[in-house]
Amino acid sequence: MSGRLIGVGTGPGDPELLTVKAVRAIEGADVIAYFAKQGRGGNGKAIVEHLLKPGIELLPLYYPVTTELDKGDPLYQRRITDFYNASADAVAQHLEAGRTVAVLSEGDPLFYGSYMHLHVRLSQRYPTDVIPGISAMSGCWSLAGMPIVQGDDVLSVLPGTMGEQELARRLADTEAAVIMKVGRNLPKIRRALKAAGRLGDALYVERGTMANAAMVKLAERGEGEAPYFSLVLVPGWEARR
Amino acid sequence: MSGRLIGVGTGPGDPELLTVKAVRAIEGADVIAYFAKQGRGGNGKAIVEHLLKPGIELLPLYYPVTTELDKGDPLYQRRITDFYNASADAVAQHLEAGRTVAVLSEGDPLFYGSYMHLHVRLSQRYPTDVIPGISAMSGCWSLAGMPIVQGDDVLSVLPGTMGEQELARRLADTEAAVIMKVGRNLPKIRRALKAAGRLGDALYVERGTMANAAMVKLAERGEGEAPYFSLVLVPGWEARR
Repeated sequence: MSGRLIGVGTGPGDPELLTVKAVRAIEGADVIAYFAKQGRGGNGKAIVEHLLKPGIELLPLYYPVTTELDKGDPLYQRRITDFYNASADAVAQHLEAGRTVAVLSEGDPLFYGSYMHLHVRLSQRYPTDVIPGISAMSGCWSLAGMPIVQGDDVLSVLPGTMGEQELARRLADTEAAVIMKVGRNLPKIRRALKAAGRLGDALYVERGTMANAAMVKLAERGEGEAPYFSLVLVPGWEARR
Repeated sequence: MSGRLIGVGTGPGDPELLTVKAVRAIEGADVIAYFAKQGRGGNGKAIVEHLLKPGIELLPLYYPVTTELDKGDPLYQRRITDFYNASADAVAQHLEAGRTVAVLSEGDPLFYGSYMHLHVRLSQRYPTDVIPGISAMSGCWSLAGMPIVQGDDVLSVLPGTMGEQELARRLADTEAAVIMKVGRNLPKIRRALKAAGRLGDALYVERGTMANAAMVKLAERGEGEAPYFSLVLVPGWEARR
């Protein structure tokens, strides 16, 4: 009998924001798998460290070093696909041996999470559960105490990697917005918000629910570099009445 | 010294999807407040029933009966505003007396939650925390095992109350979508998805993470009436490769 695959959302950073179900799944798993950068411990693992039994089997899945490659480069695409295939194989070996594998996923597993690369490769072959987690954006608007959407508001979740005009067009066409992947896109995001007439509403949030979280009105923030995982929140109209 | 206001996300229905922080807040509160329909127990309260200490002070906030009124009607607007003002006053009385008040909010408090009507009235006057919860949409895509967004996908959260052409336009202009407030809007939503060429991808989910949840491809579902709190999910392109 094969084991069970569990995609476990670890939430945005604060260990108290794990769900009761996630805690039980981590405590009951035979193997804890997680994605991490080479030489790093993995953010998802750091969030659940206090729950790991001594001697629990860990399966770190280290991203290949691809910093010299552009994401559109076919070599990058091949390396990352090979990596996800090999990662799925490594998890499958444990499942074949009848072990329950919990795959940690920061935030919410099926919402921009790396876990989904394993999910699409394994969930048709093995019994699988997904335990949702608090997303980074939800951690951020809760920390900020900012009502993000209400009533019939439209919410648009937009990657900061998008072109400036396209971003401005979409910002002008929504009540509320969350802009992800801010990092070095911040100057462009600021211009797009200004063009859409929404800069005054926008809040910049860094390191969501980490102990060292920081937030400031974007209009009052300097152009200094932003971490990749910072967010910009634009609240819906009913909150601004 | 005044008490503390805590907006507590109770998640989509499964009590195991409460966060550890939400459990602690409910167990530690002096007063549990919650919105409910007249004669009903309140869905948020049902989710946390097992955590309530005997004799804990409950503050139910019953919506006024307004079924005979249109939402655009000024009389409806006045009644509902009066109700939120009176609710905030009732909570404030406890805060003034130094009590910690946990306000239950299904899903995520600041994401289309009723709690925010109290938040905007009270959070400037009293110490306030918001504990995020798993949203209904996240509960649904997790239950369905459907990767909703990946990489640079745009996600649009759209109310099913929107006009048909507007809905079709927005569905054609996004990688992923969540359509809320389905209910009697289902036939219109179906037509809009078809016009946008997205009907084949759409999943209909009823009663998210309740014990009696149901999901089916929207294209294969009949036109029978849908509950108001059902959702339609349209996954992003990377999940459909």
